[in-house]
Amino acid sequence: MSLVWLNGRLLPVSEARIDPSDRGFLLGDGLFETMWLVDGVVPRLERHLSRLADGCSVLMLSCPEPGVLRGAIADLVDALRVRNGSLRLTVTRGCGPRGVMPPGDVRPTVLLTWAPPVSGGAARTIRLGVSRYVRDGASPLARVKSLNYLPSVMTRMEAAAAGFDDALLPGVGGVVAEASAANVVFLLDGMVVTPPVADGALPGTSRGRLLETGFCFEGSVPLGRLKDVRAAWLVSALSVVPVGAIGGRALAGDAGLEMVIRALLFG
Amino acid sequence: MSLVWLNGRLLPVSEARIDPSDRGFLLGDGLFETMWLVDGVVPRLERHLSRLADGCSVLMLSCPEPGVLRGAIADLVDALRVRNGSLRLTVTRGCGPRGVMPPGDVRPTVLLTWAPPVSGGAARTIRLGVSRYVRDGASPLARVKSLNYLPSVMTRMEAAAAGFDDALLPGVGGVVAEASAANVVFLLDGMVVTPPVADGALPGTSRGRLLETGFCFEGSVPLGRLKDVRAAWLVSALSVVPVGAIGGRALAGDAGLEMVIRALLFG
Repeated sequence: MSLVWLNGRLLPVSEARIDPSDRGFLLGDGLFETMWLVDGVVPRLERHLSRLADGCSVLMLSCPEPGVLRGAIADLVDALRVRNGSLRLTVTRGCGPRGVMPPGDVRPTVLLTWAPPVSGGAARTIRLGVSRYVRDGASPLARVKSLNYLPSVMTRMEAAAAGFDDALLPGVGGVVAEASAANVVFLLDGMVVTPPVADGALPGTSRGRLLETGFCFEGSVPLGRLKDVRAAWLVSALSVVPVGAIGGRALAGDAGLEMVIRALLFG
Repeated sequence: MSLVWLNGRLLPVSEARIDPSDRGFLLGDGLFETMWLVDGVVPRLERHLSRLADGCSVLMLSCPEPGVLRGAIADLVDALRVRNGSLRLTVTRGCGPRGVMPPGDVRPTVLLTWAPPVSGGAARTIRLGVSRYVRDGASPLARVKSLNYLPSVMTRMEAAAAGFDDALLPGVGGVVAEASAANVVFLLDGMVVTPPVADGALPGTSRGRLLETGFCFEGSVPLGRLKDVRAAWLVSALSVVPVGAIGGRALAGDAGLEMVIRALLFG
């Protein structure tokens, strides 16, 4: 039986009910975190909770207590008797009357769900296109992993229709921001670089870890420089995925650097 | 008892259940229409259904049949025994597994709800600020009334915090796009003008009607020209709201033009 944690209760998913007046459903008014579960532990949980709190602050939404969220994770993982997989924590501004303005008395909806580990195993390389959807790094929402995920959904669907696995979303001004649901790390001119948040990159937890270690640095990557990229990886809380080609051009790749990234993130 | 129409069934709202894996809830993956109900009829229903179909096309989502939607409206209005108010039709890409890509077999979620008429009566003027959220008119999503409504939510909340009722969202390049949930019509240099879709305005149904009649025309309005605006109105499917001030500067207003707008839209 599949269980979820919803507003303080463990429930079979078939009994978990999101209200039709939930602002997450009606307006995308909320945010989320996707977290890896490894041997019963969430790596970099602090970083996830901290980004969630930052996001809530931008959304002027009172963030659920970290203690409650840690308890939710422990309870769900225990009840499911799982040790690995991924967790998704969704927080919305709860139910409200018709209209854009929230009610005076906001009671956030908090949902935690688990999914089994993805295939994993040997690293499959993926083929990237370039999206026609743009990340506006100047928007306060650029730093929030919000429920306004349509640019990513459309990027992925349009990429699939064009024969790609995913695509790079440009930032404003013809630079690279990130992929549809992951940050991107490039080997370019002999250096390991990832686009800055100002260029529209979400401050991802794995990206943060790589920057912190000094393994890579932040730098703008103009779309025009993609032809010179030697290797690239999509990094997220869940995985490191080597890029085999961008816009039809095969990348040389770099097995040594890839080992280092994996060791730094998931070693 | 409050009823809603959900996926072909009339249900008390307390029994209407949105699944926690609905992509509308998790990813804002869907769109909506808000419609006026007057004496049991939805004005410009064709226009609403046509915009919904256009939006579904951008989202690569199969649009529910117009006949089904018309039937839903008739059934809900009958069951509620109401003649006036507003209707909201929400269509999402339905449930899916974890992740950004939709499942192969998409079954859209279709929700129709009713809300009582808003206060109405004598026209209250509102005070507008200018938002820090930008509408990107170049995005294919700019033409879609999608569930990615956070820029509007944040605009309205930040406007309220600053003592305004709403705010104008700029388009790219320092022009006006629209307000948080309505198009804007200006009296400027003796002409009645509304920003073009290319500047980030949603192609609203009332806006469309005003353009069609030749009453107003499309033209870019630089933010720097707001100081010269003599009168302004927010127009939506539900209302015409006169603007009393923009950024603290009081507008002269124009009672004659306002009567014409009301007559054209709701006469």
